[in-house]
Amino acid sequence: MATQNIYDDPEFFENYSRLERSKEGLSGAAEWPSLQALLPDLVGRRIVDLGCGYGWFCRWAREHGAKRVLGLDVSERMLARAAEMTSDPGITYRRADLERLDLGDQQFDFAYSSLALHYIGNLSGLLAEIHRALAPGSRFVFSVEHPIVTAPEKAGWSLGPDGRRTWPVDSYQKEGPRRTNWLADGVIKQHRTLGTTLNLLIRLGFAIAHVEEWAPSDAQIAARPEWAEERERPMFLLVAVQR
Amino acid sequence: MATQNIYDDPEFFENYSRLERSKEGLSGAAEWPSLQALLPDLVGRRIVDLGCGYGWFCRWAREHGAKRVLGLDVSERMLARAAEMTSDPGITYRRADLERLDLGDQQFDFAYSSLALHYIGNLSGLLAEIHRALAPGSRFVFSVEHPIVTAPEKAGWSLGPDGRRTWPVDSYQKEGPRRTNWLADGVIKQHRTLGTTLNLLIRLGFAIAHVEEWAPSDAQIAARPEWAEERERPMFLLVAVQR
Repeated sequence: MATQNIYDDPEFFENYSRLERSKEGLSGAAEWPSLQALLPDLVGRRIVDLGCGYGWFCRWAREHGAKRVLGLDVSERMLARAAEMTSDPGITYRRADLERLDLGDQQFDFAYSSLALHYIGNLSGLLAEIHRALAPGSRFVFSVEHPIVTAPEKAGWSLGPDGRRTWPVDSYQKEGPRRTNWLADGVIKQHRTLGTTLNLLIRLGFAIAHVEEWAPSDAQIAARPEWAEERERPMFLLVAVQR
Repeated sequence: MATQNIYDDPEFFENYSRLERSKEGLSGAAEWPSLQALLPDLVGRRIVDLGCGYGWFCRWAREHGAKRVLGLDVSERMLARAAEMTSDPGITYRRADLERLDLGDQQFDFAYSSLALHYIGNLSGLLAEIHRALAPGSRFVFSVEHPIVTAPEKAGWSLGPDGRRTWPVDSYQKEGPRRTNWLADGVIKQHRTLGTTLNLLIRLGFAIAHVEEWAPSDAQIAARPEWAEERERPMFLLVAVQR
């Protein structure tokens, strides 16, 4: 099965390009400070970014001393936009289906992936490829939508008669595709439990270094009161592992 | 703060003693097969069971070759019942507040805890004590209520107008005490995120070996159709770590 390429859907792409994280890059992504805290020193490292989008992280990594960065994405539109934004010879963008990747043996010292892995059907295969691609001692940091968010058959907030705002969970153990209407109709995301993701990593030989169920900080909620609901249930899952 | 000793509350104890897991022991606990799969070979091991209750696991461990087993519990009633059920000199039961434990240095080769740690306020302190008590290479296996279960201010199933059965989650990021009415009024459990629990373990030097968000198997649901709802959201969290 090829990875869904929703980012080349014109409606989706148009809506995606209007998001704060698309316009402002890393600083427009609320979870970036937490992800950044999980990064190793990037100086001199060979880095692969899986699902690089507009290449914000690739450029940031180069500005912070990375030796070279390979940005992979399935979306031609995203890669075209990424390419427009840099002339750095240390960054290579390449179109790739993350389900059918060949990164070689131990060619990288750090792997990064932001909000891409929940589109992947064969996560086990991709994680094995990342493990193979990393030199021993390297770190892999990624974010995905939290399984509490992806689990429900009909995802959404519920407002009870008592005014209590809740996130109703069902189908948590039923792993597999979920059809959502995020930015466009029929976006397919893959739900898997947190345990499944962590155990896949452990079985491949990764050591779990940090697991964060991301929510906005007090300071972020003070600046954006509408984000308060994101503390009712975790929005993103951030994971750091060591090869 | 001393650990809540709800098990010595007469109403709670009476109701607890009627549960299948109380009457039938390990085989009456639906998650036992999954926990059992995480155990190391117990032959010759020195074992501590934190929150041993009636001592079902302590006796099982001795039957499976453990050298000696220390069963700790805060409840006098539980320990009295446990003592009645064995005359094995290899088992010691001791009343202990798990928040104020002194287990010594590297005195044990395996630590076990079933559904006790969600009563503990100072989990960080207890985990540090367990780490200190285990010889290098030893395993620690425990179960707790899953944070999806403990998070909500008013925990319970919800039946929507469409007949959809969901578990409404809120307050996930608000760690701390939750008052529930499980078996008796005013039982206090401590909610903490899954990330918090795992990161505490990692920071102490434990390696995460397995994380299971337990739900009944197909065979269990076939035998007990009323358990099907437990697959809508994870009920227990089972964790195995390596010292």
